[in-house]
Amino acid sequence: MAANSSGGMHDAPLDNGFAGTDDLVSDWYIYETMEPDVPQDDTFSSVIPDCDPTISPKLYHVCMAPVSLAVLVGLSLLVKRRRLHRSCWNGVPGLLSPANFLEEGGNRGLVAAVFGILFSSLCVLVLDKDPLPLVAHSSQSTREYWKILALLYYPAFYYPLLACATVGHRISYLMGCLLSWCHCVVHIWQKVDCPQSPKIYRYYSTLSYIPIILCLVLLSLWYPALLIRSFTGQEETLSKEVTGRGYYKKYLKAILSKRPRKGSSAKIEESLLSRVQMYLRSYIYAPEEGFQIPLKLVLSITTAMIAVYQVALLLLVAVVPTIQIVRAGMTKDIVVLLVQFGLVPSESPAVPGDMEKELNTVKYYLWSLEVCYICSLVLCCLLTCAMLLRTLVMHRNNLKALYQGAVLDVFYKAHILRPSRQAIVCWMSFAAFQTAFACLGLLIQQVIFFICSVGFTFLVVIPLQSGTNTYLFKIIQNMWPFWLTLVVAVIVQNLAAHYQFLEHHSLRKELNNRRALYIVTYLLFPTNVLVGVLAGVWRMVISGLYNAIHFCQLDISLLNRSVETFDPGYHAYCHYLKIEVSQSHPVMQAFCLMLLQLARPEGPPGLRASNVEEGIQLMQPKKVPLSRARFKQSRARWWLAYTLLNNPSLTACRKTALSDPTANGTQLSTCKP
Amino acid sequence: MAANSSGGMHDAPLDNGFAGTDDLVSDWYIYETMEPDVPQDDTFSSVIPDCDPTISPKLYHVCMAPVSLAVLVGLSLLVKRRRLHRSCWNGVPGLLSPANFLEEGGNRGLVAAVFGILFSSLCVLVLDKDPLPLVAHSSQSTREYWKILALLYYPAFYYPLLACATVGHRISYLMGCLLSWCHCVVHIWQKVDCPQSPKIYRYYSTLSYIPIILCLVLLSLWYPALLIRSFTGQEETLSKEVTGRGYYKKYLKAILSKRPRKGSSAKIEESLLSRVQMYLRSYIYAPEEGFQIPLKLVLSITTAMIAVYQVALLLLVAVVPTIQIVRAGMTKDIVVLLVQFGLVPSESPAVPGDMEKELNTVKYYLWSLEVCYICSLVLCCLLTCAMLLRTLVMHRNNLKALYQGAVLDVFYKAHILRPSRQAIVCWMSFAAFQTAFACLGLLIQQVIFFICSVGFTFLVVIPLQSGTNTYLFKIIQNMWPFWLTLVVAVIVQNLAAHYQFLEHHSLRKELNNRRALYIVTYLLFPTNVLVGVLAGVWRMVISGLYNAIHFCQLDISLLNRSVETFDPGYHAYCHYLKIEVSQSHPVMQAFCLMLLQLARPEGPPGLRASNVEEGIQLMQPKKVPLSRARFKQSRARWWLAYTLLNNPSLTACRKTALSDPTANGTQLSTCKP
Repeated sequence: MAANSSGGMHDAPLDNGFAGTDDLVSDWYIYETMEPDVPQDDTFSSVIPDCDPTISPKLYHVCMAPVSLAVLVGLSLLVKRRRLHRSCWNGVPGLLSPANFLEEGGNRGLVAAVFGILFSSLCVLVLDKDPLPLVAHSSQSTREYWKILALLYYPAFYYPLLACATVGHRISYLMGCLLSWCHCVVHIWQKVDCPQSPKIYRYYSTLSYIPIILCLVLLSLWYPALLIRSFTGQEETLSKEVTGRGYYKKYLKAILSKRPRKGSSAKIEESLLSRVQMYLRSYIYAPEEGFQIPLKLVLSITTAMIAVYQVALLLLVAVVPTIQIVRAGMTKDIVVLLVQFGLVPSESPAVPGDMEKELNTVKYYLWSLEVCYICSLVLCCLLTCAMLLRTLVMHRNNLKALYQGAVLDVFYKAHILRPSRQAIVCWMSFAAFQTAFACLGLLIQQVIFFICSVGFTFLVVIPLQSGTNTYLFKIIQNMWPFWLTLVVAVIVQNLAAHYQFLEHHSLRKELNNRRALYIVTYLLFPTNVLVGVLAGVWRMVISGLYNAIHFCQLDISLLNRSVETFDPGYHAYCHYLKIEVSQSHPVMQAFCLMLLQLARPEGPPGLRASNVEEGIQLMQPKKVPLSRARFKQSRARWWLAYTLLNNPSLTACRKTALSDPTANGTQLSTCKP
Repeated sequence: MAANSSGGMHDAPLDNGFAGTDDLVSDWYIYETMEPDVPQDDTFSSVIPDCDPTISPKLYHVCMAPVSLAVLVGLSLLVKRRRLHRSCWNGVPGLLSPANFLEEGGNRGLVAAVFGILFSSLCVLVLDKDPLPLVAHSSQSTREYWKILALLYYPAFYYPLLACATVGHRISYLMGCLLSWCHCVVHIWQKVDCPQSPKIYRYYSTLSYIPIILCLVLLSLWYPALLIRSFTGQEETLSKEVTGRGYYKKYLKAILSKRPRKGSSAKIEESLLSRVQMYLRSYIYAPEEGFQIPLKLVLSITTAMIAVYQVALLLLVAVVPTIQIVRAGMTKDIVVLLVQFGLVPSESPAVPGDMEKELNTVKYYLWSLEVCYICSLVLCCLLTCAMLLRTLVMHRNNLKALYQGAVLDVFYKAHILRPSRQAIVCWMSFAAFQTAFACLGLLIQQVIFFICSVGFTFLVVIPLQSGTNTYLFKIIQNMWPFWLTLVVAVIVQNLAAHYQFLEHHSLRKELNNRRALYIVTYLLFPTNVLVGVLAGVWRMVISGLYNAIHFCQLDISLLNRSVETFDPGYHAYCHYLKIEVSQSHPVMQAFCLMLLQLARPEGPPGLRASNVEEGIQLMQPKKVPLSRARFKQSRARWWLAYTLLNNPSLTACRKTALSDPTANGTQLSTCKP
């Protein structure tokens, strides 16, 4: 670089060089005096008309916050009144549950939409000058405190939108309708009033609000649907969906109907093409009958997708307009400087008046940069979304394995699946972690891919087009004997290993010609060191790329298997799975529901006696004849042994094992019968 | 940065700014004309006296290459003549084996020394202008070809130094003595004659030859020792050591003497201190009785250590003298420029005449850079050496586990331990890969640690000393409420999880207060996203650091466990283990040796009948009474079942399993009885 710049300066005649420098310096000072220390925001604001929406954010929040609070209190009282006649103060006091994360409810889309609104609000408030809309025009010193307060304010503000659905009453549905319509109308009105804002890029504010508006539109359609269904007599199905009984029944049916496994016997005859197809299909999440992803995972994927949108939008509007402005404002004086530094090739000496061609080259380079940036951003978004879909597939596989007790199919070491302090904390923050990791993963990928694509463009594509700056091709041209040697050495070793050093028997292969093997090993040692350097570079590249691409996947540890739980993401995932499997196992939930039905046959009209009988039949497929006690005992023992053999992870949960803390780490296996 | 530079320019009065620029530009051109396009090497050579050693490298190689060839041919004939009377042309024709890598010989240090010489020669030839000493003053265009030829020339040149020991005859030892003395004397003489050279740094050449000279000194002491021992009647022990029988016997004895395991029962009562001690001890390789690291591993660690020395030396002499020269040549004009760019703090306006204090600051900064560089280099070398020691411990553990058949303690999936084409190629290049990875690992670590230490110095240490450039402290000061919020949120969640959401029973913990859990989960979602961002940064840092530090370890895959064999280093290691375990299992070797002894009782005097009997006793501890056939059969089946149960990896080697290609991937376990 330094050699280039000095070379460029040396080429230019002295007079011109000085003239150029003087011009530049005076230009610089003029620029300085014209715009003294103005932040970029205000530069843009000069062309964007000032705009005050009819409903200002402050007015909106000042009105809606008390309304939300009133709705919340009202709903609490409503729930209380409905249960008051059963037990006076031991009913359900205090706050309403936002969503039953561990039980299957019907309104998964609704909950996901509210979490999407919440995350989008977080994105807006982090970059905003007035994080708390109730307090307009906050000063620099107090802004930090308002931001912290806003972190708690927004969840509380949108709380009623969730609670209205969880209560499951007509009045609450009506409230939900009104609230969501209000929010939706106000947001759309604000953005129609003022589509442009001076922040970062004129349309950034509008674009970043799109997820919020879409989620609100979803809510304002969902609540009316719930309300209408509650009136049109579909109460039974509704109750089924609210309590999740529909799903649990489906899951049980899917498990108990032993379908013949297709293709398990024809596995060997699979062609390469079909295996590639299967591999690609493992990246695409297709819903499976009888299995449903838990609510928390749905939330995490939804917010992660919104995170990808928000981060990609920010990356796009923060850089691309700037490059475009620089390209439009490129002058011949700056081109002279670039030519002098050797960054732009030029045949003629650096005269500022005669730089038309070089100016076009510079503009072309800037355009290439822009294209690289956008291409890598698109690639990153696609990759991150693909990985998020893939992570859903992995979650489903892991959950199914754990539901069946195959702990070692999921974890490297045996784990006891029961709640603990860490597990609860990880479960609470799982969706947030997934979202944050998607943001960071996209950022890391964008940095890596942008550098790679710029390198590829400026070292391969542009030299091929223009025939200048062919550094890379010169290096390759100089070094081709070296590369050829390495390739030949590797091929020779492979051929020798196959034809000389390996004796092919019918079933086994044996080592042969040992002395020749030792001689080749010794003679090729220096060559192999160079091959090893290439392998090392490949190791670096592949591990870096793999980790960058899979950064957003929590189900994969980025560390070696012996220390994999030191990865905070994987650690959170493992603990999340523990809570999810131990607390919301579908079979257990179905069993609990049946017990509840048995305990109160006078319950809601949805729970009929026929269902109970059906459940009992499901749980007890055939009657055991009460005969000799010894036979029963031996049979029970056999069943126990068989169960433990097939689910060795259960041994860790047995009473004797539980009192022994070392039982945790022992390696057990899942030997399928 | 841009804002700073413009600010600096703005502060300086116009006149001074222009004067400074003019001075600089004229200085620049003077500098240009004084040294037109001279590479740095020649700048240094002006002060280093030209030096021609009495024995030039060309003369040395022209003389020694034919001598080496003659020794090689002579030794070949010697071996032939010794075996000629047994079978005329089916004896041992052609080249001698350099070293029996798969059998245990006694001269491990000697082989390691020759490989050390070889690798050091490779380092010298890669950077040298005359890679092939036989061809002095090669031109730029042909140099590549000579380098490639030199890759094969050096192993051939040092071949006799190895072969002399492998032949195991008095004459060959004598030849080895003479050859090693010759090499050693010539190398030392050359370096005493001309300790300085213009390449990179005046003493670089001498320092880079130190490993070669040390290895040659070792050889020229080892060969006389071998020669003397061959005369003083210690033939029996010698033969034992050459054929490695001593080691195999020791290994068998160590296995068959069932020592009581210390501390296995007292494991639970271990204190934290002792566990930390144990962990640290697992990083230090202490030789264990009855177990010996295979020769290839000894070679790989030796060359890796030499690689660390050579790379560290190169990194040191390429940078530190340059920084020192820059520091010594720092003028006030350059300081003005640095002050204008805002890189150096200054109270006074930028006047070139009055910059004494700023000049000292710049020199102090440069000195700090130098200190950072050297500190990080020392840290890297220590870490890499520690990891190489650790890798030895891991190799031993893995080999011991595989010798016992515990495949799944080492590999994640079941492997069949038998030779294959890939396995042979990986085995051949294993030592070279280990060496190359140590080089690359050191480089990567140096880059990372240097950046970190410079960041720490200039953001923390220097601001604390001088009170300027306190950017980091300002950021921390501004953001402390934010950090505090995150810490409080994490603590609150942990406390709530422990005291509120978890019900502690006697044996099990159960989830409690579900609704409160859901509410806290919902309300803290935005806060947890920010915690997740920190966790993501930590994930990035820890995976990057872990991979950089463990880059030189081949026994660890840098990828996730599901794709770990895509890591070229780990892939090579796995295959290396297959060959090593299947071909040089100590018990198998001992058994083969006994078979050989039985086949030719008239063999060398070292093999006595008593040894054979001892071996038979070892292999067959008690006689099985020949009774009913049915009983025997059932017993055999029971043994088979028991063996397969305890060593499930063996099932993959059974005849029916071998014909089934899918048996490879099934997950099996090692259930200890």
